[in-house]
Amino acid sequence: MALGWLAAGGSAPSEAVVDMAAAVELLHVSALLHDDVVDGSLTRRGAAAAHVHEAERHRAEAWAGESRRYGEGVAILAGDLAAAFADELAAAARPETQVHWRAMKSEVALGQVLDHVATARRVRDPDVALHVVRLKTSMYTVVRPLLLGATECGPARALQIAPALEAYGAGVGEAFQLRDDVLGAFGDPSDTGKPVGDDLREGKPTWLLADATALADDRQRAVLESVGGDIDEDGVSAVQGVMVDLGVLARAEERIVRRTDDAIDALGRSDIDPVVAQSLTDAAYSLVSRRS
Amino acid sequence: MALGWLAAGGSAPSEAVVDMAAAVELLHVSALLHDDVVDGSLTRRGAAAAHVHEAERHRAEAWAGESRRYGEGVAILAGDLAAAFADELAAAARPETQVHWRAMKSEVALGQVLDHVATARRVRDPDVALHVVRLKTSMYTVVRPLLLGATECGPARALQIAPALEAYGAGVGEAFQLRDDVLGAFGDPSDTGKPVGDDLREGKPTWLLADATALADDRQRAVLESVGGDIDEDGVSAVQGVMVDLGVLARAEERIVRRTDDAIDALGRSDIDPVVAQSLTDAAYSLVSRRS
Repeated sequence: MALGWLAAGGSAPSEAVVDMAAAVELLHVSALLHDDVVDGSLTRRGAAAAHVHEAERHRAEAWAGESRRYGEGVAILAGDLAAAFADELAAAARPETQVHWRAMKSEVALGQVLDHVATARRVRDPDVALHVVRLKTSMYTVVRPLLLGATECGPARALQIAPALEAYGAGVGEAFQLRDDVLGAFGDPSDTGKPVGDDLREGKPTWLLADATALADDRQRAVLESVGGDIDEDGVSAVQGVMVDLGVLARAEERIVRRTDDAIDALGRSDIDPVVAQSLTDAAYSLVSRRS
Repeated sequence: MALGWLAAGGSAPSEAVVDMAAAVELLHVSALLHDDVVDGSLTRRGAAAAHVHEAERHRAEAWAGESRRYGEGVAILAGDLAAAFADELAAAARPETQVHWRAMKSEVALGQVLDHVATARRVRDPDVALHVVRLKTSMYTVVRPLLLGATECGPARALQIAPALEAYGAGVGEAFQLRDDVLGAFGDPSDTGKPVGDDLREGKPTWLLADATALADDRQRAVLESVGGDIDEDGVSAVQGVMVDLGVLARAEERIVRRTDDAIDALGRSDIDPVVAQSLTDAAYSLVSRRS
């Protein structure tokens, strides 16, 4: 968001834009609280997820009712409360900025619904995978925060640079998510801090998996269909082997490079201040070349 | 909300106030979707609750993952989406109206958190019970909708009648909730459509239960402590007997009459149009004298 403010020519931040930055953080807290319940994730940022922590407390104190129900209830309602407080913080922003704020909330909710349903239904469609990436990663994580900052700085200037910021966000969001997919399928546990092939165990409907499924023959497809089930380390290796044989890993790496280039080219064609464009370029490279 | 609009002197509704009414409905859908997960409620409006319906579908289709997790995930995320769409509908309203809209969202979330935690911790404090009533029933269900309508009609006029609407909502909200508590503990199943003493089985931290606990001797308190556990019909009868012996039922009926009178007196002392005041009075009587 700060880079969006700077991209529109801002210097010292206004009080409203600082409040909006806090609103974005609080909205993200809300999304994570709900996401950990929806995915049944046990940990978050190295500690017990909120719903797990609250369920444990319920159990230890022998409170009334079911512990899982209690813990998940606290996380759901705390998420709702965080979202309501985020709206209070966002309320001082310009009306033009609030258009992006509302769009951001709809987009993340839509992306989450689509991801949740596609995971359960074992959807292996690259277009669905890319649509989830667009909503959850490109728009929610990159484009809307940049547009929030830019629009709060100056709505007219923001309209001028919006196409460049959107193209940048679409490219870098997709490249970032593909890097995440590659790490989730092939990442070194000593780098990622997660078991190898974590995404494959969870059956995440990634572009990587969809692309592999589209190219696979019958034998390979049978291996890929084990994803999301109760597969062991050998099962993970078999899936990785099929993906490598099909050239999917190489295709993903090519696509990461291409979409990162698209993002940076979009900045180069705009009249965004070169210092800010360089910061956005640096951010893109660090996001897509990470190893964990 | 319509009565708030009329109370402020409105006639033909504006487009923005119609959209705001739809926003209120959609926010309520969101709250119910989350509430049914938080409470583990199986039914809603005579059909399976959304999370139950989705879990059954997941099971029938043999989709990936845990069915309960999937169903609850859909309900949580659909609730988030409904809340985001509600904000889009509310966005055309006046800035003064949106203050009430945001307050309404915070109040219902706070009331839900407090209710959820107090239920699990078996809180038997009349002040806590009344605070939950204030947030969830008086403010969320009565006062904010009236103020939304009134403020959208005319912010200056709304400020003049706000104290009367707030006193009306506080009284009628409390009386309505006490009626709900009495029905939940003593209601006739053929009227309510729920098993007799449903609130007592669930251990809801009602004012009725808190008042009884405050007045009980040791033997009576032991009976009251069975509430929220796995009690059968005899257990329900025993709790009801203690409540009657302590005069709690009579005290609740008195309080319903008194708080309804407070609500109607507040209207009488205001300069709200007599026809609208009569509609609000009729609404109060119908809310507090219902049998189901």
